[in-house]
Amino acid sequence: MKLATLPHEGCPDGRLVIVSDDMTTCRRVGDMTLQQALDAAAVPQGLEALAGAPEPFDPARALAPLPRAFQFLDGSAYVNHVELVRMARGAEMPERFWIDPLMYQGVSDPILPATAPITGDFDWGIDFEAEVAVITGAVPRGATADEAAQAIRLVMLLNDVSLRHLIPDELSKGFGFVQSKPPNAAAPLAVTPDALPGWDGRKLSGVLRVDLNGRPFGRADAGIDMTFDFGQLIAHAAKTRPLPAGTIVGSGTISNKLDGGPGKPVDQGGAGYSCIAEQRMVETIQGGAPSTAFLRPGDRVRIWMEDPAGNALFGEIDQEVAP
Amino acid sequence: MKLATLPHEGCPDGRLVIVSDDMTTCRRVGDMTLQQALDAAAVPQGLEALAGAPEPFDPARALAPLPRAFQFLDGSAYVNHVELVRMARGAEMPERFWIDPLMYQGVSDPILPATAPITGDFDWGIDFEAEVAVITGAVPRGATADEAAQAIRLVMLLNDVSLRHLIPDELSKGFGFVQSKPPNAAAPLAVTPDALPGWDGRKLSGVLRVDLNGRPFGRADAGIDMTFDFGQLIAHAAKTRPLPAGTIVGSGTISNKLDGGPGKPVDQGGAGYSCIAEQRMVETIQGGAPSTAFLRPGDRVRIWMEDPAGNALFGEIDQEVAP
Repeated sequence: MKLATLPHEGCPDGRLVIVSDDMTTCRRVGDMTLQQALDAAAVPQGLEALAGAPEPFDPARALAPLPRAFQFLDGSAYVNHVELVRMARGAEMPERFWIDPLMYQGVSDPILPATAPITGDFDWGIDFEAEVAVITGAVPRGATADEAAQAIRLVMLLNDVSLRHLIPDELSKGFGFVQSKPPNAAAPLAVTPDALPGWDGRKLSGVLRVDLNGRPFGRADAGIDMTFDFGQLIAHAAKTRPLPAGTIVGSGTISNKLDGGPGKPVDQGGAGYSCIAEQRMVETIQGGAPSTAFLRPGDRVRIWMEDPAGNALFGEIDQEVAP
Repeated sequence: MKLATLPHEGCPDGRLVIVSDDMTTCRRVGDMTLQQALDAAAVPQGLEALAGAPEPFDPARALAPLPRAFQFLDGSAYVNHVELVRMARGAEMPERFWIDPLMYQGVSDPILPATAPITGDFDWGIDFEAEVAVITGAVPRGATADEAAQAIRLVMLLNDVSLRHLIPDELSKGFGFVQSKPPNAAAPLAVTPDALPGWDGRKLSGVLRVDLNGRPFGRADAGIDMTFDFGQLIAHAAKTRPLPAGTIVGSGTISNKLDGGPGKPVDQGGAGYSCIAEQRMVETIQGGAPSTAFLRPGDRVRIWMEDPAGNALFGEIDQEVAP
C-alpha cells in the first residue's frame, strides 16, 4: 500500500490518502491524518475500510507523508560514509563505530514537501544526503532488533540537508546537530514494506538514484554496505526509551564501497555518491583537493528509486536551491 | 494565565484547560489541544473567548502541558553546571562554551506527567535535572534574540532525566544524547510570561526547589548565573531553521555559583544543586570521591517553584523511581 498526505486548510498535518499502485488516483481515509492512523495502530490493515471514492492524484500537490513528526532519529548505518566524511574533515573514526551505531535526534517539524526549495546561506556549505527512512508503530523500551523490525510500518525517502561548514564546530561540542541540519524533504509516498519487493524485513535493496543538475550523481544500492539494518537502528534508539507510533528512523546517507575503498563517480562507471561531501573526499584523495562545490543557488537535486518497470516507487524528491 | 492538559480518551494530546489562579478550577477551551491553540496563534489571547464553564481542577490528573511535542531543544544555559559536570567526568570545557550555547535536540514524545515513575536500570546512573523551559510560537529563521524572546508563549518546569553512566560514551561520538536522555516529566501547569512576576522578558528569576526523599537538595535561583537567556537560546536554535509553534526550548540544569566556585549543599547553608551529578562533583573536590549515589528504586524527587504566598507556581513534579 502506498500512502501520501495532501494539504488540508488550517491543519499542518494535512490529510491521509491511499494512493493507487499506478499513482494516478487516491482515496481519502475518513478525515484522518497519518499520525492519527499510526496512533490507532491502523496502518495498514485498518485503512482500506475507511477509504473513500477514488479521485485524481497529483504527487506535486502532496506534502511529506508526515509533514511534522514527533521524532526523527537519524542513524549512520552506512559506516563507509561516516569514515569518508570524517577523513574529509581530518577527524579519525573510532573502531567501535562499526559495532555501535551513530544516531542523533534531528529536526522533524517541518518535514518539507518533495519539491520545497532548499534555503540557506552558500557559506554554510549546503549539501544533500539521500537516505531511506522508516516510520514505526509503537516500540517498547528494550525491544530487540527482531522485535523492532516488526514495528516498521512504512518506508520512505529523505533528503537530509546538511550544512557542511557548520558541522565541525557543532559536532566538536558533542551535543549533535542543531544548526548544521536544517529541515529535510521527503519523497511524496510512504510505502508499506509488503509492497516493496526489495524489502527483506530489515532493510531495502535497490538503487537510490540521485541526479544533480540533470546528471547522474549517485546510483548506490541501499541494500549494500548497510552495516546496521533498521531493526538494529530502532533497537539502538529504544534501548532506554519507548518509541511512540510515528517515530521516523533514518538510515543516514547511502554509501557503497568499491573494492573496499571509496566508490567512483557514475560517469567513471561507479555507483557515485549520495552526497557531495563524499565526492569531494574522493577528489581530495585523488587530486589533493576537492573540485566539486557544495550547492549553489539554482542547483537542482533529484532523488528517487525505481521499480522494475521504471516507475518511481516513492515518487521523487526534486528540490532547487533558492536564490 | 495558567494552562494545563487533561486526559482525553483515545487522544495522546489530551485537551487544553485554563486553570484558575488559585488552581482549584479549570475551564475547557472548546475541544482544543494546546498544540492546536499554538498552531492557531491563539495563546493566550484567543483562549478566553472559547472557555467553557468552571469545573474542579485536580493537578494530579493533568498530563504534561504538551504531552508530546514536535521539538525539544535543550540548551545548557548555566555554564557553571556544564563546567562542573565535565570536571566530574574528566573532560575539559572549551572556553567558547561561554559564548556559544550548547544545545541538543532531545526526546519530546512522550513528555511524561508530573507524577510518572522514573524507570530505568540502576546501572545506567539515573539522575534528575531540574530546569525551566519555554514553549514558543512560530519563530522565523534568523530571528534575533530580541525577536526570539517575543515568541515565548509559555513557561514551564521540566525534570530532564539523565543516565550519567551512558553519557560519556555517547557524547564522545559527537552526535548528542539518544540513549542517555530518556523521556522527561513536566510540572502540570504552563504559565504565560505576563503571569510570572519573576519573568524579565528573557529569563525567569525565582528559586527552583528540589527535594530528594523529603530533604531540600536544591534551592538555586533560575535568574542567577544564566549565561544565555531564552532569547539567546531560541535565536541559536533558529539560526538555520524556522521553529514552528509548539517548540520547547529548555534552559538546562539550573546551577548557581558561590564565590565563583561550586555551591554548597542546602544543609550547609548553600543553594544546593539541581542534579545529583553536581553534588557528586563537589564531593569529589572536597573528599576525593563522590559519596551521594545516583537514584535508586524508591527514591523520590520533587521539583517546584513558589510564588510569594508559597503556592506552587507551576504545580509540582513529584516522581518516584520505579522498582
